[in-house]
Amino acid sequence: MPVVDNENRLVGIITVDDIVDILQEEATEDMEKMAAIVPTDKPYMKTSVFETYKKRIPWLLLLMVSATFTGAIISSFEEALSVYAALIAYIPMLMDTGGNAGGQASVTIIRGLSLGEITYRDIPRVIWKEIRVAVFCGASLAAANFAKLMLFDRVGLLVAATVCLTLVFAVLVAMLVGCLLPIGAKRIGFDPAVMASPFITTIVDALSLLLYFRVATLVLGIGG
Amino acid sequence: MPVVDNENRLVGIITVDDIVDILQEEATEDMEKMAAIVPTDKPYMKTSVFETYKKRIPWLLLLMVSATFTGAIISSFEEALSVYAALIAYIPMLMDTGGNAGGQASVTIIRGLSLGEITYRDIPRVIWKEIRVAVFCGASLAAANFAKLMLFDRVGLLVAATVCLTLVFAVLVAMLVGCLLPIGAKRIGFDPAVMASPFITTIVDALSLLLYFRVATLVLGIGG
Repeated sequence: MPVVDNENRLVGIITVDDIVDILQEEATEDMEKMAAIVPTDKPYMKTSVFETYKKRIPWLLLLMVSATFTGAIISSFEEALSVYAALIAYIPMLMDTGGNAGGQASVTIIRGLSLGEITYRDIPRVIWKEIRVAVFCGASLAAANFAKLMLFDRVGLLVAATVCLTLVFAVLVAMLVGCLLPIGAKRIGFDPAVMASPFITTIVDALSLLLYFRVATLVLGIGG
Repeated sequence: MPVVDNENRLVGIITVDDIVDILQEEATEDMEKMAAIVPTDKPYMKTSVFETYKKRIPWLLLLMVSATFTGAIISSFEEALSVYAALIAYIPMLMDTGGNAGGQASVTIIRGLSLGEITYRDIPRVIWKEIRVAVFCGASLAAANFAKLMLFDRVGLLVAATVCLTLVFAVLVAMLVGCLLPIGAKRIGFDPAVMASPFITTIVDALSLLLYFRVATLVLGIGG
């Protein structure tokens, strides 16, 4: 593809290789942002240890500090947890599943926005779709988990109900946060790609735990 | 770009648009795999709710079941946790930071493998580099965390030491797992892209907690 100036004089050529390079670099950059890495255009093997460190530490630090809120939520329910110690064992499962569900939704939406497949006027349809997908996913996961809790873990019915109900809500909240944050980021001029799994996970973790303790308070009647 | 058969007869043309489409589809597919989604070549707005559900539920289910092990680890340390209840509050931070660090390493390596920037003979250098990056990241995070634990949370010195020591080990293990699993997957013929954040997180969560309770046993002298 020739590149010409205003008077049609040839000033250069864009080859297919150039286009391939640019597309691959852009995809790499998006993937790095989605993995909470400050993007770089240097190949991994040519980046020094200190440079790699500088690309990884800012988000690690920021996300670590944010996870403090999640810890604070657990602390505030310490008393309730000491009564129903069985509830502690399901915290990782609820956090991970919420994080995974939110990550799936966010990456789908981020990619859709970046390729122009999703535009602002699609937002109501996106939200309505994510709600339905989340309800189906949440219900399937809760059913599988309920069977496991009753048959293998042999916990009480109310504990099983608490965990499974939380699971449905957590997946719903996760997929909604996962689709809304990238759209909101784009709206206010930020790159939606940074609203991917690591960032969503931190938010969804805190929300899942709040839901968990709220549901536990209602179902098991424990104080918060 | 013309496409010819054996006898140099024109059978078709590959346009730049075709190349752009293929590269974007491949990048999308990789991103979906990295987010634990079964890849699809249909745009989001044209996929039905049930199809989207079917793309998300397999990995959500598998990862949920895997998170059971993490729960079992917590259960087996329930007694120790009831003595040092403060330790529970740092579980999300340790799990999240480990997951993020592992995700960063894995995405970098997956992308490097996929673009051909990293080959098998680079493995020793990759491992050595990840170890050094992990030590620097772990040390920085531990230092920041130690200050926060002592100044704001006002926990005891031994609890702070337990959390920070675990953090260093967790980041090290996470970055090693994050670089080794994609390489191992490629070696045995699997697609390295599935070895990204969600999968790594599940493994790193379990390992971080094992480390946490091991360190707590040694530093705080509590029984496991």
